[in-house]
Amino acid sequence: MSSIYHGHLTVTIFGQSHAPAIGVTIDGLPAGHAIDLDALQAFLDRRAPGQNDWSTPRKEADSPEILSGLADGVTCGAPLAAVIRNTNTRSKDYSNLRDVPRPGHADFTAQVKYGGAQDVAGGGHFSGRLTAPLCIAGGICKQLLAEEGIAVGAHIASIGGIADAPFDPVDPGDVTLPGQKPFPVQSDRAGARMREIIAGARAELDSVGGLIECAVTGLPAGLGDPMLDGMENRIARLVFAIPAVKGVEFGAGFTVAGLRGSENNDPFCIRDGQVRTRTNRAGGILGGITNGMPLLFRAAVKPTPSIARPQESVSLSRMEEVTLEIQGRHDPCIVPRAVPVVEAAAAIAVYDALLEHRRDEK
Amino acid sequence: MSSIYHGHLTVTIFGQSHAPAIGVTIDGLPAGHAIDLDALQAFLDRRAPGQNDWSTPRKEADSPEILSGLADGVTCGAPLAAVIRNTNTRSKDYSNLRDVPRPGHADFTAQVKYGGAQDVAGGGHFSGRLTAPLCIAGGICKQLLAEEGIAVGAHIASIGGIADAPFDPVDPGDVTLPGQKPFPVQSDRAGARMREIIAGARAELDSVGGLIECAVTGLPAGLGDPMLDGMENRIARLVFAIPAVKGVEFGAGFTVAGLRGSENNDPFCIRDGQVRTRTNRAGGILGGITNGMPLLFRAAVKPTPSIARPQESVSLSRMEEVTLEIQGRHDPCIVPRAVPVVEAAAAIAVYDALLEHRRDEK
Amino acid sequence: MSSIYHGHLTVTIFGQSHAPAIGVTIDGLPAGHAIDLDALQAFLDRRAPGQNDWSTPRKEADSPEILSGLADGVTCGAPLAAVIRNTNTRSKDYSNLRDVPRPGHADFTAQVKYGGAQDVAGGGHFSGRLTAPLCIAGGICKQLLAEEGIAVGAHIASIGGIADAPFDPVDPGDVTLPGQKPFPVQSDRAGARMREIIAGARAELDSVGGLIECAVTGLPAGLGDPMLDGMENRIARLVFAIPAVKGVEFGAGFTVAGLRGSENNDPFCIRDGQVRTRTNRAGGILGGITNGMPLLFRAAVKPTPSIARPQESVSLSRMEEVTLEIQGRHDPCIVPRAVPVVEAAAAIAVYDALLEHRRDEK
Amino acid sequence: MSSIYHGHLTVTIFGQSHAPAIGVTIDGLPAGHAIDLDALQAFLDRRAPGQNDWSTPRKEADSPEILSGLADGVTCGAPLAAVIRNTNTRSKDYSNLRDVPRPGHADFTAQVKYGGAQDVAGGGHFSGRLTAPLCIAGGICKQLLAEEGIAVGAHIASIGGIADAPFDPVDPGDVTLPGQKPFPVQSDRAGARMREIIAGARAELDSVGGLIECAVTGLPAGLGDPMLDGMENRIARLVFAIPAVKGVEFGAGFTVAGLRGSENNDPFCIRDGQVRTRTNRAGGILGGITNGMPLLFRAAVKPTPSIARPQESVSLSRMEEVTLEIQGRHDPCIVPRAVPVVEAAAAIAVYDALLEHRRDEK
Repeated sequence: MSSIYHGHLTVTIFGQSHAPAIGVTIDGLPAGHAIDLDALQAFLDRRAPGQNDWSTPRKEADSPEILSGLADGVTCGAPLAAVIRNTNTRSKDYSNLRDVPRPGHADFTAQVKYGGAQDVAGGGHFSGRLTAPLCIAGGICKQLLAEEGIAVGAHIASIGGIADAPFDPVDPGDVTLPGQKPFPVQSDRAGARMREIIAGARAELDSVGGLIECAVTGLPAGLGDPMLDGMENRIARLVFAIPAVKGVEFGAGFTVAGLRGSENNDPFCIRDGQVRTRTNRAGGILGGITNGMPLLFRAAVKPTPSIARPQESVSLSRMEEVTLEIQGRHDPCIVPRAVPVVEAAAAIAVYDALLEHRRDEK
Repeated sequence: MSSIYHGHLTVTIFGQSHAPAIGVTIDGLPAGHAIDLDALQAFLDRRAPGQNDWSTPRKEADSPEILSGLADGVTCGAPLAAVIRNTNTRSKDYSNLRDVPRPGHADFTAQVKYGGAQDVAGGGHFSGRLTAPLCIAGGICKQLLAEEGIAVGAHIASIGGIADAPFDPVDPGDVTLPGQKPFPVQSDRAGARMREIIAGARAELDSVGGLIECAVTGLPAGLGDPMLDGMENRIARLVFAIPAVKGVEFGAGFTVAGLRGSENNDPFCIRDGQVRTRTNRAGGILGGITNGMPLLFRAAVKPTPSIARPQESVSLSRMEEVTLEIQGRHDPCIVPRAVPVVEAAAAIAVYDALLEHRRDEK
Repeated sequence: MSSIYHGHLTVTIFGQSHAPAIGVTIDGLPAGHAIDLDALQAFLDRRAPGQNDWSTPRKEADSPEILSGLADGVTCGAPLAAVIRNTNTRSKDYSNLRDVPRPGHADFTAQVKYGGAQDVAGGGHFSGRLTAPLCIAGGICKQLLAEEGIAVGAHIASIGGIADAPFDPVDPGDVTLPGQKPFPVQSDRAGARMREIIAGARAELDSVGGLIECAVTGLPAGLGDPMLDGMENRIARLVFAIPAVKGVEFGAGFTVAGLRGSENNDPFCIRDGQVRTRTNRAGGILGGITNGMPLLFRAAVKPTPSIARPQESVSLSRMEEVTLEIQGRHDPCIVPRAVPVVEAAAAIAVYDALLEHRRDEK
Repeated sequence: MSSIYHGHLTVTIFGQSHAPAIGVTIDGLPAGHAIDLDALQAFLDRRAPGQNDWSTPRKEADSPEILSGLADGVTCGAPLAAVIRNTNTRSKDYSNLRDVPRPGHADFTAQVKYGGAQDVAGGGHFSGRLTAPLCIAGGICKQLLAEEGIAVGAHIASIGGIADAPFDPVDPGDVTLPGQKPFPVQSDRAGARMREIIAGARAELDSVGGLIECAVTGLPAGLGDPMLDGMENRIARLVFAIPAVKGVEFGAGFTVAGLRGSENNDPFCIRDGQVRTRTNRAGGILGGITNGMPLLFRAAVKPTPSIARPQESVSLSRMEEVTLEIQGRHDPCIVPRAVPVVEAAAAIAVYDALLEHRRDEK
């Protein structure tokens, strides 16, 4: 058990930050669908580093090579495999990470789990870079969902206490609009303030976290399963694959804890001959199953743990406390780059459920 | 895909609220461990209804019969199966639920998904009653974890805005203490106020939600896997099996969105010759893997959707809006009864990871 | 990993020969299908012991109780669970099996695997009795396949060197006919001779093995997947769940080893406007996928290991060689009773593939 | 479900014969084991084509590139991914295969399953070439098993009716010896006659099938699980992943059908202070679990379906019968090259069970 999502689709992630490559296999894609590789590249570019003033300047092309699964650009029923070559790897000495773990990173836990055999370079398999193959899988699922009129979109809901305008839970409109901007927010004014927050954190050799809100629209009712494979279970499992995520909530989320039933229940109504709900505190999910309203969730993203300030750590070889200074430059805020990854995670979960739905419809 | 957790342990939940029985199978339990059935019953009693003034008066013994998997009270390596008989079932006419779905329930989504063939009586497979078999599995895992010195405990973190004293993230002490009380809180004073809130909601024919905090102590470092099978992924997937949960967060959770890296990173230190962290905003998990600190998470529980007040719904047969009044009495707050279920979900996830850990240690 | 088939359907087998019950859960059945419980009982009766002169006189009703998954006799989308109570259990002392393992049984390997904690009574989870829940699952799948015009039938292909008339590979007719007889053969004359062979073995306190041939007709082309989930992989995995099976072959099977390509390839032809093959040495499977011809396979069943003759064994406690005499009466030949179990295994595999096929057709 | 083995190890196969690459991912390998890439290459060379007079002259280096999962040549706990580039692909026009399927191949069934979107070039994902990534996974497992003193070896048991000397079931000696020869047999004399048979088939534009026998020695007792995950189930599932295999049998296999219990049961005895069996008709497996004796099985391999003789087929577009002549040269017998693939399949299954065994030993 590790880096595999095993449902109607099976998505296998592999690679380390400084291995020859990172990549993904997707087993279970239906045959006969054209994949737009330019659109996929554009989606990956939203996650790629080094493109602006709020992310790390490491420049990786993040250009996937599709090794299999397509014939003449169309899914052929065979597993799709794609790789992204790592470039400029092993350029520095990472051996210190084996002895002095970085706070907030997996260096220590990997050391314990793998007995020192783990690949420490650049965080190895725990690097945020591993979200790129997740985006390949998710980007393909997004395209296949779009064929069915289903849109997946996300935006920065807040950074450092500055909130973006939320999606309207009942009628969010085109939820892919924020993702078409360099800085994916609904309100550019809020976005400008967020960027100031990020710049401030960077200037102080620090980092900052944030919230991401994601919506899926155009969904039919009836997707998902009770108990362990509801939409919440599937999405949460995939979104927590993003290293920095520490919380996931659906619809009204944590605020339900303070509500009464009469305030939280979404009344049913008829709109345009369809069963709808007047409000959407359920986030489009009842009993784990989509109800035809927009599916809405939020993910909490922690501040980048790599900061340039001196930090307290320990030497594992000497079992004594030491001060650690992390070299290099890092994203002062990974939230903007995590937005497409959240979309990718949602798209995989939703497309997986859609495949099952089709089977059951027959 | 549905009501199955498939890892080193495979837990299969079955049953409907008014079927002959509900139950669970657990495949993968190691052989040779005595199961204390009295302790298991005591654990199930914490979830059982009808025992006090804050829960539904439906009285079910919730006494599991172990059908297989034990020989002379000891796990024998074969799959363990247990059932709880439903009593006094089908006592009323539920057919109206097929036409007029209850807001906040799965009636509508089940109708769409199963084309009207779903078992509507008492919510069928979507009933909160299905958390009883989850508690059988979790209660057994709790016992097996206790053999290793690992404790799983939870308490009501808040109800209706009234907060209990949180677990100390670094040194929470005996986290099973709240669960030994009829009303599982740390501060009985806060508990008394929560019960007033519940009584108030009941008097107003309404319901109220809340938060549950869970901790796992005594864990070795090194449990869990990167990406899709980290402790967050496993626990979230299981906790979202509880019908009313709408959010899950680990450690500092959603508050990380407002923190800086220098505030959020937990500094490493040496305590009693062990690597520890001074703070525990990570909730004991780094890179999906336990770091030896207490594992901490919270779940948001929505207010019981069944309320006696008139609600807006629709007639699916006539496709018109109608007013629904739900008969019968229901828990005005399910949070107290959900506390052991959250423990059960955590125990399954942690024990599953522990089994894998043992394999890897060799 | 153990007693679970995990595909589009998940079938979980549980129970021990002398536990309170044996049973099965089936997750993933589509909703809305009526299950004929009388027909299911009739199918289980074909496997049940004690009904004639060639099987063990242990009399078990083998009447399943459906605990969940049905509402008004119709699949409701929730997992189906069924149990068969064990009666007259623990009537003798089985403790000697823990020390002196029976040749040909799992007593020794279970002792090693479970460290002595295994349930030895009647073979525990390794008992042939555990094929009864497999037949519950398979019997239900057979009914659901029959709705689609797909028939699953098997017969005794040989016992003790006496061969039945094989199914015609290209046009086997109604393959369920043999299963409607008390002794499931095509040629009753051959059957009579087989029964003499069985009677002879019984008289000599011995047992005898045999072959079972199974066919599935009415299949559409296109079921199954390449490599690990082809029809051969799925069926073999399920058929080897029958404790006595030691070999599985498809179509021409082991004879292909002596054929030339020009002899073995099935020429394509057009029949009634359909693509067919003139011969069917492939057993209806090409590349793991059904080709629309009858699916054909055979399973080799070993002679019942429980024989009344003295046998050489060892005392595990004293680590010395001893002579073992097994008490009680046992089937001198389990092949007749294994015929419906082979059908059940095939039906599960085929229905699982059919569910996937439906998804892909959309 | 498709090209994935999902157990303690998850092995994912991808690629098409003429896609950019074929490859494999292996998730679940324990960290800290050095992989000998030269030995792996030598193992792959046993399967590679074009090296002698009995195989196809297509020359592919079959040199895997390890993309991830190793750090400094040692398993690092992250999923291992490896690819083999396809060279000289798309060199001819395969479009005719879409219309006129080759007898004995998956052309027709893939056409139906994938609706014409399948990759037809060189058989696509159904090509025997896909056994190369299976050999990467199996070759690595073989090395890891060898660390534990477990040897996996196979030989040609027969071709065209000429039988090799079988492994001694009780004491087969070094079972890896045949694999060290260019033509993997025990008796070179038998091997010489087999090569004449192959040459004869080639001269007559035909092909020939055969049997492969495989043994695993040095196994501890206690590996495997009851029912669905016994060693027979696991091995059969993996061996049937080899496109040409039509039958699998363990120990005495199909001959058990003609034996009596007194002939087939293996008497237990004590040898060198260990529990053993005097004979080994069980093939080292009782109740699905290894008993400490050599594990033995045989696989039936059909003659290469690609033969140069004219064959009867159909035009799918015109729905009429046509004569097909397959161009190019093909292996007149794939049995020699399939020998390491059978070893690979066995090694994956056995290592998977060994990982589970370790967990349970604790």
